[in-house]
Amino acid sequence: MSNISFLPSGIFVDLYELTMAQSYWKSSMRGEAVFELFVRKLPQNRNFLLAGGIESLKEYLLNWSFSIEDIEYLRSLNMFDNDFLELLSALHFSGTLWAVKEGTVVFANEPIVQVKAPIIEAQLLETAVINLVHLETVLLSKCARVVLAAKDRAVIDFGSRRAQGVDAALKAAKCSYLAGALGTSNLLAGKIYGIPVFGTMAHSYIQAHKSEEEAFRKFLNHYPATVLLIDTYDYEKAVLTVIKLSKELGADKIKALRLDSGNLVELSNYVRSMLDKAGLSQIELFCSGGLDEYKIEELLKAGAPINGFGVGTNMVVSKDAPSLDMVYKLVEYDGRGVFKSSAGKETVPGAKQVFREKRDGKLVKDYVAAWKRNDKELKAQALLTEVDLLKEERLSSVRDRISEELNTLPEHIAALEKCSIDDIVDFSLLSSN
Amino acid sequence: MSNISFLPSGIFVDLYELTMAQSYWKSSMRGEAVFELFVRKLPQNRNFLLAGGIESLKEYLLNWSFSIEDIEYLRSLNMFDNDFLELLSALHFSGTLWAVKEGTVVFANEPIVQVKAPIIEAQLLETAVINLVHLETVLLSKCARVVLAAKDRAVIDFGSRRAQGVDAALKAAKCSYLAGALGTSNLLAGKIYGIPVFGTMAHSYIQAHKSEEEAFRKFLNHYPATVLLIDTYDYEKAVLTVIKLSKELGADKIKALRLDSGNLVELSNYVRSMLDKAGLSQIELFCSGGLDEYKIEELLKAGAPINGFGVGTNMVVSKDAPSLDMVYKLVEYDGRGVFKSSAGKETVPGAKQVFREKRDGKLVKDYVAAWKRNDKELKAQALLTEVDLLKEERLSSVRDRISEELNTLPEHIAALEKCSIDDIVDFSLLSSN
Repeated sequence: MSNISFLPSGIFVDLYELTMAQSYWKSSMRGEAVFELFVRKLPQNRNFLLAGGIESLKEYLLNWSFSIEDIEYLRSLNMFDNDFLELLSALHFSGTLWAVKEGTVVFANEPIVQVKAPIIEAQLLETAVINLVHLETVLLSKCARVVLAAKDRAVIDFGSRRAQGVDAALKAAKCSYLAGALGTSNLLAGKIYGIPVFGTMAHSYIQAHKSEEEAFRKFLNHYPATVLLIDTYDYEKAVLTVIKLSKELGADKIKALRLDSGNLVELSNYVRSMLDKAGLSQIELFCSGGLDEYKIEELLKAGAPINGFGVGTNMVVSKDAPSLDMVYKLVEYDGRGVFKSSAGKETVPGAKQVFREKRDGKLVKDYVAAWKRNDKELKAQALLTEVDLLKEERLSSVRDRISEELNTLPEHIAALEKCSIDDIVDFSLLSSN
Repeated sequence: MSNISFLPSGIFVDLYELTMAQSYWKSSMRGEAVFELFVRKLPQNRNFLLAGGIESLKEYLLNWSFSIEDIEYLRSLNMFDNDFLELLSALHFSGTLWAVKEGTVVFANEPIVQVKAPIIEAQLLETAVINLVHLETVLLSKCARVVLAAKDRAVIDFGSRRAQGVDAALKAAKCSYLAGALGTSNLLAGKIYGIPVFGTMAHSYIQAHKSEEEAFRKFLNHYPATVLLIDTYDYEKAVLTVIKLSKELGADKIKALRLDSGNLVELSNYVRSMLDKAGLSQIELFCSGGLDEYKIEELLKAGAPINGFGVGTNMVVSKDAPSLDMVYKLVEYDGRGVFKSSAGKETVPGAKQVFREKRDGKLVKDYVAAWKRNDKELKAQALLTEVDLLKEERLSSVRDRISEELNTLPEHIAALEKCSIDDIVDFSLLSSN
């Protein structure tokens, strides 16, 4: 089961990486570089992130190469020497990848990934490394918030149609599942990742029939345990039809009703009470329509009797934080720590490690420290470990880890409301080293 | 030159489309359906949209099919009859596509695409049609704002690393070019679409050398007409180095300087005056770093002497409007107009046409009217025409059209500030018909 949806070739890269790489090559700069990937600042609406894309990155690094067509295209630009193009055509990843485990909770300025490799390789990987880790980190972090807000209710990914492209749609399906959703509506994602698929019915199905009742009857006739959509015309009439059909066809034919519009608190309460009065308490209510973690929390706080949520666009584009200030920065070259002092974008020289301290299963402190510091001294767990590129991790194992990770979060960090994490992440060891 | 980056197979579809399709099939519903794709409501920060993804959709429809592996996966779900799977395995698009031309200015509730086909086909296409048209419409609309804000200054797409996936990165490169950007930093996009590629240098290049001056010298030695990045350590010192090197190596060696951080108004003014005083007025200033249309407008209003902008993340994820309320709704089945009355999501029955009236080259009025209305009577141009799937349009031709389209916009609509377009789009003909 492939863990990545699209593996671009080596030429998915910004031009300047190649001009810089050729320049390193001409200057005989062959030293090892350490690049660190981290997020400079968390978005306004995020207390924590879940590191994503590590598995995708492993597969990318294993397959990283420039194809013959790539080389011919590069030649056509008249910027690269034949010898350098020769080098590119034989290139593969000879370095090592260090990273936190997929799904690990991370905060701003904590390294998520380190690439240690000859500078030409490490430089050429920048565009793809960020793209792969960025998107899945955005998605895992957003999906985790949705799952946390839904508490024990089911969440299903409905977002494929408005995800930013096919790649993003598939990764959103995967990431929502990893974060705790039950599955996705997207069949290609189901096929590629082996995750459960779910579906209900659309308004068009109802509209294509002469009447709503006829549409319900047909669907009930064709499928066992169906979910009927009841807001096409008039939900009060639709519920009466549902009750009539349940009595006629058997109470177990209709598994759930879907509400997709209107005031979902009022509607769900009304429909629930109508069903209960008719002795149909086993029929569940499933809601969709512009949902996100904020609306779900609001619905549940208002006591809406909803059993599950179909969450789409707002989750899969991570509408309130569609990007992260994620960067991939050189911190060491040839054994020498390097930094930059650009205004507002200063970096700290040298490779770093994150040591995590937990108490009673809860995260209490992260120490960001120089790479060589001994973790035993800190009685804390080092988060970055060397990655075995050949060892693929199963989705179910990542999913379990994420569930555990979310359990380690202190309540104020797991909450949707912004909180300060200044007391959690300690950078003082960096300067004292 | 392929116009699409990723063509998913037919199984890039929500499960319910298939269960509904099988139900239509079991009920012998073979009538023609008309589905209309439109945006219900424009985002807060958009006065207009540019319709995108039409060319991608053409290619998708031409190639639309379910592979043998798709069929086997569907069989494994135990929800579909063999006869229906047989039908799917032989399916191709037998309907017609009607659409506005790629890059056309559109407003809320104006149909952008119509799919007229047997209902099974039209239903099964929903997920892909929206995904393809949605992303490129989001991107074209955002990129147009950036290009408009930059006035005659160069805009270059720098967004690949933080686009939402590989597909989105490539489409952002294409859409920014179509909207008027000069090109992209992404080489794969350059290769696939044949659009110009650009690059400068990164901080890592400077840092990997012992000193900034050494880095500048090496790059100048390896490339003609370079762009040097001057904010790694101290831009005042960097400018002095640039002046020294220009005098030493010749004034034409350095084409431009890039500023990537800090107060770009102050910095650009300082650097410009230093260069001018040194007789280096031909060296241009190029800025990047968290730019978008708002910041570009601000910089230019403040008189910052900037010649070009590298625009990345905020543009390619369309940060202020990463998704549109775009839907694909059944409006006719078997010759009968259909509608839904879901709260806040009501639709108007029947296929629609948009008639556009211009005066002195400017858009003055759009009439959304029933399909059969005669456009001659309105003395206006019908925007939706039947699409020849086999006729590929060149990017340069779409790019020219978009440039013309943007010129037709009244000033208040082209502006970044939100304005009312109630006076522009007239729906009164729908009810009177």
